[in-house]
Amino acid sequence: MGMDVAEWIAVDWGTSNLRAWGIASDGNVTFSRSSDRGMGKLGREDYPGVLAGLLEGVDPSSGDVVICGMAGARQGWIEAPYLDAPADLAGLIFSAVRPEMSDSALQPRILPGVCLKAPGAEDVMRGEETQLLGLSALVPGFSGLVIMPGTHSKWATLSGTRVERFTTVMTGELFEVLKTHSVLRHSLQGELDGPGRDEGFDAGLSMGLDAPERLTATLFKVRAGSLLSGRGPDWCAGFLSGLLIGAEIGGQRDWIAGAEVPLIGSTGLCALYARALSRIGIAGRVVDATDATIAGLKTARKALA
Amino acid sequence: MGMDVAEWIAVDWGTSNLRAWGIASDGNVTFSRSSDRGMGKLGREDYPGVLAGLLEGVDPSSGDVVICGMAGARQGWIEAPYLDAPADLAGLIFSAVRPEMSDSALQPRILPGVCLKAPGAEDVMRGEETQLLGLSALVPGFSGLVIMPGTHSKWATLSGTRVERFTTVMTGELFEVLKTHSVLRHSLQGELDGPGRDEGFDAGLSMGLDAPERLTATLFKVRAGSLLSGRGPDWCAGFLSGLLIGAEIGGQRDWIAGAEVPLIGSTGLCALYARALSRIGIAGRVVDATDATIAGLKTARKALA
Repeated sequence: MGMDVAEWIAVDWGTSNLRAWGIASDGNVTFSRSSDRGMGKLGREDYPGVLAGLLEGVDPSSGDVVICGMAGARQGWIEAPYLDAPADLAGLIFSAVRPEMSDSALQPRILPGVCLKAPGAEDVMRGEETQLLGLSALVPGFSGLVIMPGTHSKWATLSGTRVERFTTVMTGELFEVLKTHSVLRHSLQGELDGPGRDEGFDAGLSMGLDAPERLTATLFKVRAGSLLSGRGPDWCAGFLSGLLIGAEIGGQRDWIAGAEVPLIGSTGLCALYARALSRIGIAGRVVDATDATIAGLKTARKALA
Repeated sequence: MGMDVAEWIAVDWGTSNLRAWGIASDGNVTFSRSSDRGMGKLGREDYPGVLAGLLEGVDPSSGDVVICGMAGARQGWIEAPYLDAPADLAGLIFSAVRPEMSDSALQPRILPGVCLKAPGAEDVMRGEETQLLGLSALVPGFSGLVIMPGTHSKWATLSGTRVERFTTVMTGELFEVLKTHSVLRHSLQGELDGPGRDEGFDAGLSMGLDAPERLTATLFKVRAGSLLSGRGPDWCAGFLSGLLIGAEIGGQRDWIAGAEVPLIGSTGLCALYARALSRIGIAGRVVDATDATIAGLKTARKALA
């Protein structure tokens, strides 16, 4: 190390991982580094050392380090209080908190998350607000629904840089806990990526889209399918995935207005959502999550100039 | 032991527990015994010894032991193949299987479960069919929907002793896996039975009944409620329970025809379901699960005479 130059450092500090990118004055990414030292593994006192260690040999000319994600949670480095939605994300950096970083020229800022306090619709996001700000830069003038598939999917309505409302859907985490800890695990042991996966996905998707209100009943069809029809683990895994994604989209269908919906997330997962959306005549426009995060951190910092 | 007399033995052999009742010729229960040697803890070869051990010193005059539940599963003592629904439960005993029991005067019979093979509605039950047969004896002439709250709730439509259709709803298991393994566990640590539990239950129940299709989104309101509104673990536990029960009833509402629904299960859980049903103008009629099981085993055996 020691050869990495940058004007400033963009950082995504999540629950599981920590990623940093060097950004040149022209906006280009000059290097990237990452580690598994996510918020979930750290005590409050660990953060300065972990950040300094990751950025060893780097001397960003401005000293700026702009951080989004769980480092700003109450159980993170230092709490960056939520902005209340509806909220304009253009000024995100002005609500950043500045933790102490002694014995270092680095000047970290942690961006806030966004919360929604509407009674019965309370919700929180931390990290996704930066991706939404990034989307507003990547797709100038965009307004409408954005879906961010993941462990906790977010559905957000954006007007330019303003987030109007959003909700969290626990699709990815439900898949994991049901696969690992519920009776359905008996049907999901072995090769999950076999040739039956696509067929299972489509069957589950139909059921989830058609009857999202029956999800807690149709989930058991995974087990019944393997007991009665000899469905293999690949079919069952596809079915469970399709059912949960179908129920997510079917249950929130009234949020969909336009004919195209940006999908911010990993390529593989976004492809499944695009396939699901196409069933109801909607085109998914995949935006890589890392691209959106970097664009958001850049846009946030630009407001300082 | 050694003083227990009976004409025959009624047995409920579930996943977690084994329970036996001595039945006199007049139908009275003369004794009961139980153990934690459920199907989940046993290999195929363990069953004869476990049964003989539990019934040590008992010498039923007929030798008959009538068993319902998971002992008849593929991974149990010996598989008792499912009856296909629609199915008349009156003749359940004629589909029982008779496992070997050497060095013993006991003559065990294991009752079959019931399956539904309708495409897209495949389902299975094992043990509940005996409770349904019991209900037909406890409430002669009953026809209509029966709800059996539990880890895996069953909704079944009964016409006398005939089960027309049924579905499994994973309400109880979802509560457990979400409480133990998901991000919601952070909001469910501490005293869950505090004074906020009832208020949380009612709030969750409203949301689940009104919008069962949004369950995978409203689940996250547990977490948001504790982060944003300082809800305690008792409120959160009540909310999660109400949300899941509300979604179960709201999602299957079209199954409800009459003004009264029998509820077969534990007293505490049935009380929650009765409270939920009363919100939509339906009376729950609680039938103790053990009473229904014993009545079902008696009715099954009576057909042999």
